[in-house]
Amino acid sequence: MNAGRNPQLGPDGRLVHLLTLEGLPAATILSILDAAEPFASFGEREVKKVPLLRGKAVFNLFFENSTRTRTTFEIAAKRLSADVINLNIGASSTSKGETLLDTIDNLVAMNADMFVVRHSQSGAPHLIASHLLATGRSHVHVVNAGDGRHAHPTQGLLDLYTIRHYKRDFRALSVAVVGDVLHSRVARSLIHGLATLGTPDVRVIGPRTLIPARVEGMGVRVFHDMRAGLADCDVIVMLRLQNERMKGALLPSAGEYFKHYGLTDGKLALAKSDAIVMHPGPMNRGIEIDSPVADGERSVILPQVTFGIAVRMAVMSMVAGN
Amino acid sequence: MNAGRNPQLGPDGRLVHLLTLEGLPAATILSILDAAEPFASFGEREVKKVPLLRGKAVFNLFFENSTRTRTTFEIAAKRLSADVINLNIGASSTSKGETLLDTIDNLVAMNADMFVVRHSQSGAPHLIASHLLATGRSHVHVVNAGDGRHAHPTQGLLDLYTIRHYKRDFRALSVAVVGDVLHSRVARSLIHGLATLGTPDVRVIGPRTLIPARVEGMGVRVFHDMRAGLADCDVIVMLRLQNERMKGALLPSAGEYFKHYGLTDGKLALAKSDAIVMHPGPMNRGIEIDSPVADGERSVILPQVTFGIAVRMAVMSMVAGN
Amino acid sequence: MNAGRNPQLGPDGRLVHLLTLEGLPAATILSILDAAEPFASFGEREVKKVPLLRGKAVFNLFFENSTRTRTTFEIAAKRLSADVINLNIGASSTSKGETLLDTIDNLVAMNADMFVVRHSQSGAPHLIASHLLATGRSHVHVVNAGDGRHAHPTQGLLDLYTIRHYKRDFRALSVAVVGDVLHSRVARSLIHGLATLGTPDVRVIGPRTLIPARVEGMGVRVFHDMRAGLADCDVIVMLRLQNERMKGALLPSAGEYFKHYGLTDGKLALAKSDAIVMHPGPMNRGIEIDSPVADGERSVILPQVTFGIAVRMAVMSMVAGN
Repeated sequence: MNAGRNPQLGPDGRLVHLLTLEGLPAATILSILDAAEPFASFGEREVKKVPLLRGKAVFNLFFENSTRTRTTFEIAAKRLSADVINLNIGASSTSKGETLLDTIDNLVAMNADMFVVRHSQSGAPHLIASHLLATGRSHVHVVNAGDGRHAHPTQGLLDLYTIRHYKRDFRALSVAVVGDVLHSRVARSLIHGLATLGTPDVRVIGPRTLIPARVEGMGVRVFHDMRAGLADCDVIVMLRLQNERMKGALLPSAGEYFKHYGLTDGKLALAKSDAIVMHPGPMNRGIEIDSPVADGERSVILPQVTFGIAVRMAVMSMVAGN
Repeated sequence: MNAGRNPQLGPDGRLVHLLTLEGLPAATILSILDAAEPFASFGEREVKKVPLLRGKAVFNLFFENSTRTRTTFEIAAKRLSADVINLNIGASSTSKGETLLDTIDNLVAMNADMFVVRHSQSGAPHLIASHLLATGRSHVHVVNAGDGRHAHPTQGLLDLYTIRHYKRDFRALSVAVVGDVLHSRVARSLIHGLATLGTPDVRVIGPRTLIPARVEGMGVRVFHDMRAGLADCDVIVMLRLQNERMKGALLPSAGEYFKHYGLTDGKLALAKSDAIVMHPGPMNRGIEIDSPVADGERSVILPQVTFGIAVRMAVMSMVAGN
Repeated sequence: MNAGRNPQLGPDGRLVHLLTLEGLPAATILSILDAAEPFASFGEREVKKVPLLRGKAVFNLFFENSTRTRTTFEIAAKRLSADVINLNIGASSTSKGETLLDTIDNLVAMNADMFVVRHSQSGAPHLIASHLLATGRSHVHVVNAGDGRHAHPTQGLLDLYTIRHYKRDFRALSVAVVGDVLHSRVARSLIHGLATLGTPDVRVIGPRTLIPARVEGMGVRVFHDMRAGLADCDVIVMLRLQNERMKGALLPSAGEYFKHYGLTDGKLALAKSDAIVMHPGPMNRGIEIDSPVADGERSVILPQVTFGIAVRMAVMSMVAGN
């Protein structure tokens, strides 16, 4: 692959931004997962801090509200000793008519080192990274914290980390992604990552209204019958069902959804006996997942959160570390 | 007493959570006040920081908004060198339907060390502490920053600190608590603490509509005539009158309230000549307290604030210090 | 001048508060600009931190929302290693009826070292500084981050820094300030600073409805014809046109305004060939400034932002530095 064409990689092939897992080389993905390993056991230390980003200014630019994701990046940055500035952009200059790129230029002029960007518009983090490149500010880094329906690469990386942690070899796995794949940047990022790492069998499971057209082009198999889709799989990734979907015409009712696509102990029994259950959170108990499964011994939902901090520390220190 | 039955104390009797002053042993209360002493003169230092919580993650979980209380905990934690993360929970996952305990589990998975919890529901901090205990995460600590009408133990401790600072021996004091005792977690926590420390004469003063039924069971005397209640007391604790009380049927008017229960120089003259005047803030001048009293030489309202930071530093470092 | 009469200066003539540039001695202004010099190249360092305010508590008291200005002070304070506490005062005790000075007294009791104050009422920072002086708390400092239509002294200082950086000698310059001078505390602060530093030719340019009556008393010349006003000037300071002005009766339309008072390459050609273009931000492109000018080689709008951090670091370290 030509590193020069991937805006995430510098001329030497090093990671400079994290925008999407699509097109990111397997070696880069694996190097991030490897870098996250020491941070994953960080919680056991008395002093949970390293000076890798000391004196660096990390801006959390959340154009779309997400306390949970913002918190994980804030914790990761503080553990790396960065100075973190949270900007709720809805309430600031943007509402005064300033353009996105003027806002970015201003923050760069304040000597920002990194932008963690969440935006409801797909492509906003790419736009910022391209602008920084075009204007010669290659020392400022962008990490995509979720853009529209496009990508959520740190979530994808933490999912990959979790799968590798429990299952080791991607090249021998069956992974099922269940639920609202249509609206899920989480699913998109994970599917891209699994493909790059050579996962032979990826399945998407959900009602016709929530599975994107032509998703088979991403190398996955589609199931509308959850029981068929779960058969003998190693990993089950349950997606959050956004409440607003249930208000529209896409779904009959929460009860109907749970009956067909909610993960229960009964359905889980169809997967391999050592299959793991994942969920990006926050969970809707009783809608996409039954409480006994969420809290059961096959659930790795809370370890995912811990690994999420580690993966974000790895990404941030790789792109901007001293 | 059986330490094993008090969820605030560990198997060795050490403080692990601060949930309420009710049932907390006198020795524990006094050890907190003693630990706060060096921090109370912290403001005179050039560098107001100690590394006792360095690398620890303190989450301010404010399910009920309170900038003032949140700020005091934030300052206390930063002076102990903790990393502080403020979560306005109203705006986050809870509004997405996630349960309180799922939110807690997620934050624990992010390697939280301490939760400072403010909640409109009585018992929420206990619920969190019990959940942590039941799930084997005894290294994570809970500090109650006010729950419903139940308790506000750090406010109670700072009140006790202030009384001890000025009056030394609890066992020779008359303390009057004046105002809306019915709705006051501040009053409840203070009355429990005073009882534990052996204060012989605690009085509550207020209109019948604002004094809880059966309050005598807490070991206090009730006065509806403020002049009678203040006679010869050593300490006067004025409570804030919530604006919303005046809109309901509980009170005739602010002017009437001030006439009967507002602390003026005239009423203060009925107490001992060296009596101190306290108030948890924020004050309603001209409603529960007259400005000459609030700003007078008997007022220790601002020292209470200073002692409040010290007491919170003491509690946080005792439960989670390196 | 009698330092004793200027509330910004201590008995020894040192800067203790920064409230306004009006009446601030030239030597003090120049000492701030000199102190900012080393901080202006801070962005090139790996570790952008100095310990000058280590252990100090800086409170951002924003009674009027301004994410941009608040962020610049937050960054400046964190680079000086201060502990920064952001208070959105609208949401806190003030809304509970507490007075401004009671809020200040409480924060001082929490051992605040510095207040950065933004307020919609002219004079609020002065009121706070006077109260601190009257109550003997001269170790607590106030920095005005914009009050009403009165002053925005750190913006004035960064403008002066920028002009000195590019033009060196104030005593040989023609400076034009263009736009809504009537409502602009930015313009007022800059004009006071330019006068103190001996700038011989300061011009204000704008429609009659947006130029204050008797502005000539500040030592400026008034132009309603922008082309005449820009002739042969060295520095052009474009002011932001508040959107709300365009809704009222003060202006015909955004298009009309741009035609008469928008800075285009054509109008810029009337100034000296090496004239610089400044703007306090956020810009309304196509209203007060044309994009080719904003992004052109004569624009120093982004360097202003960088210098703004440096100037704020200088002010904060001068008033409260260890």
